[in-house]
Amino acid sequence: MHKGRLEAFSDGVLAIVITIMVLEMKVPHGDGAHGAEFADLHRLWPVFSSYVLSFVYLGIYWNNHHHLLQAVTRIGGGVLWANLHLLFWLSLLPFATGWMGENHFAAATVVLYGGVLLGAALAYHVLVRALLAHHAADSPLAQAIGADRKGKLSLVLYLVGIALASWQPWLAVGVYTAVALIWLVPDRRIERTLAH
Amino acid sequence: MHKGRLEAFSDGVLAIVITIMVLEMKVPHGDGAHGAEFADLHRLWPVFSSYVLSFVYLGIYWNNHHHLLQAVTRIGGGVLWANLHLLFWLSLLPFATGWMGENHFAAATVVLYGGVLLGAALAYHVLVRALLAHHAADSPLAQAIGADRKGKLSLVLYLVGIALASWQPWLAVGVYTAVALIWLVPDRRIERTLAH
Amino acid sequence: MHKGRLEAFSDGVLAIVITIMVLEMKVPHGDGAHGAEFADLHRLWPVFSSYVLSFVYLGIYWNNHHHLLQAVTRIGGGVLWANLHLLFWLSLLPFATGWMGENHFAAATVVLYGGVLLGAALAYHVLVRALLAHHAADSPLAQAIGADRKGKLSLVLYLVGIALASWQPWLAVGVYTAVALIWLVPDRRIERTLAH
Amino acid sequence: MHKGRLEAFSDGVLAIVITIMVLEMKVPHGDGAHGAEFADLHRLWPVFSSYVLSFVYLGIYWNNHHHLLQAVTRIGGGVLWANLHLLFWLSLLPFATGWMGENHFAAATVVLYGGVLLGAALAYHVLVRALLAHHAADSPLAQAIGADRKGKLSLVLYLVGIALASWQPWLAVGVYTAVALIWLVPDRRIERTLAH
Repeated sequence: MHKGRLEAFSDGVLAIVITIMVLEMKVPHGDGAHGAEFADLHRLWPVFSSYVLSFVYLGIYWNNHHHLLQAVTRIGGGVLWANLHLLFWLSLLPFATGWMGENHFAAATVVLYGGVLLGAALAYHVLVRALLAHHAADSPLAQAIGADRKGKLSLVLYLVGIALASWQPWLAVGVYTAVALIWLVPDRRIERTLAH
Repeated sequence: MHKGRLEAFSDGVLAIVITIMVLEMKVPHGDGAHGAEFADLHRLWPVFSSYVLSFVYLGIYWNNHHHLLQAVTRIGGGVLWANLHLLFWLSLLPFATGWMGENHFAAATVVLYGGVLLGAALAYHVLVRALLAHHAADSPLAQAIGADRKGKLSLVLYLVGIALASWQPWLAVGVYTAVALIWLVPDRRIERTLAH
Repeated sequence: MHKGRLEAFSDGVLAIVITIMVLEMKVPHGDGAHGAEFADLHRLWPVFSSYVLSFVYLGIYWNNHHHLLQAVTRIGGGVLWANLHLLFWLSLLPFATGWMGENHFAAATVVLYGGVLLGAALAYHVLVRALLAHHAADSPLAQAIGADRKGKLSLVLYLVGIALASWQPWLAVGVYTAVALIWLVPDRRIERTLAH
Repeated sequence: MHKGRLEAFSDGVLAIVITIMVLEMKVPHGDGAHGAEFADLHRLWPVFSSYVLSFVYLGIYWNNHHHLLQAVTRIGGGVLWANLHLLFWLSLLPFATGWMGENHFAAATVVLYGGVLLGAALAYHVLVRALLAHHAADSPLAQAIGADRKGKLSLVLYLVGIALASWQPWLAVGVYTAVALIWLVPDRRIERTLAH
């Protein structure tokens, strides 16, 4: 089975998810007139900052997905569904982003946002496992994944963030941002292994 | 004629259809404040569960479409329109999903949802016939399709679901879910034949 | 210059345009309750029928664009802009469709719809000219286009439709539908020439 | 690393951004009835004209991105992020376009629009630098970019436009339009160098 259409479909979904998040950022309407002042814009900052965070996350997923599939040589039916499962969680991000932004990072919304991030991370983990099942233990893919310390650390941090969210939402947002910063460095493991 | 652009266009439409369904899941707005409680989220469960069902259906169609076209070697003008006809029915799914979800699976909405599923299934059947017309009876495609028992069973089940919907909408939703489960196993017939 | 990205970008825009038209078909909301009756659906028929007409038109453009570019061997900078110009007119179709559908084919809306169709047809004509400028008079492309009788007839019929619209909107819609039926047969000229 | 998926993802995002701008152009609803007169349409002209300007800008970016990546032979992880950074700014254009159009080119909205254009131009500049870091000084890419006078002039003109906007918004819109006209001619530098 060829990986070309899997990549094309994933690129399509990720491109759309990353773009429709902007639709959650509604053009400000004031009372009577339309709201054409910078003050109207200023009120949008929680929506905008949650958009930026989600944009970075989706960029990370696209980057890692891109690196991951470059090391892949064979895919099977299970991989198609593992990939769709990842896309499902990522498709929920615009909703979670909008809810969190419009409610100024209220506790419940930050819990949901963390839950979606956790779901996507677990789905990515499942996708990696499904791919490894088609590759030998000494394949470039298996070597590139290795112990996957960054992936495991992220899962722990998401759980910490979710636990913190009900008590201190802002701290949780800080944790989510920290995870994004950890990943912002693209997956050099795979890049390094492929370069050999 | 090359099948590359047919695949690319279909991937594009399916990726968009699967993603805009999330737009039907409106960020909850409460009275006065915005609705930042889990209770506000809880009210969305019919919308969410119908989204999940439609996501799975679109995943199934993408998967089967992917398998189908891999076995295809030649396409003609009729195939382009048969494919567009399938995409037309699938493009109605977000609307049917939103209507069913927002109305808590009311009878009429479940009938419509089943009707769209039936239309898509018939359109897929027509697409398969249009493709078979370009391939010999002993081609990998023809062998892979075979008697298409799963396809015929689905058509019957959709009709059963639609008939049940006015009387017991929930039973109908159960039937639609059962059809999805039948298909969740990707089309191993084609995979097996191609592997030979 | 390679035509691959031109095709990919055009496929992307057409796939999105064809899909966001469904967003104009708003899930019906009744008074108090949500509007879960077939009667609520029935009120949507002008929106739905205008959606079907536009879907067919976009399918025709995608089909002809696909055939056209298959015969093309060289593209230049001018072609990129001629193609964007065509996509511009097609991107206006969801708006024109929504306006016409929501207003039950009122005169002004039918005039605008015809105007967008006319603009798209002229833009397609310009694109064909821009492509011919890069190909010899005896190239497959030039032979396949030929006298372009169907294209010229369509321009005349759009003008007739627009002229009729203020007086008899339904007659104009009939003319637009007739043009779609003329084109529904994919451009066999190119197919035939390429088959040689 | 292959540039194919980078191009496909960028094409996807740009195709979506260019298309969802139309969603900001809401179908006009009058009082009581729907607003099916040309007068209702006429009220949309600021929205429409800002849509046209943004469409042209996105067309320019797609064109230049297309030319730029054709001259590229190698990409690295930094390029992926530089590209996402460019897409981020371009994804803000529908919002800025809608805000400016709906508020009839009010001062603050024109400042924001110029700011987004400036951000996108800087991001494009960063992307070019990131690409040059992977290519020799005498590579086709480096020769094609050259002194990048048009890029530098644009940055200055955006700043002039932003400075003018608070005082004379229309003058600023004129400056933005002038920059678009400068770029409407596709990047012949790269085309010429590649032709050698």
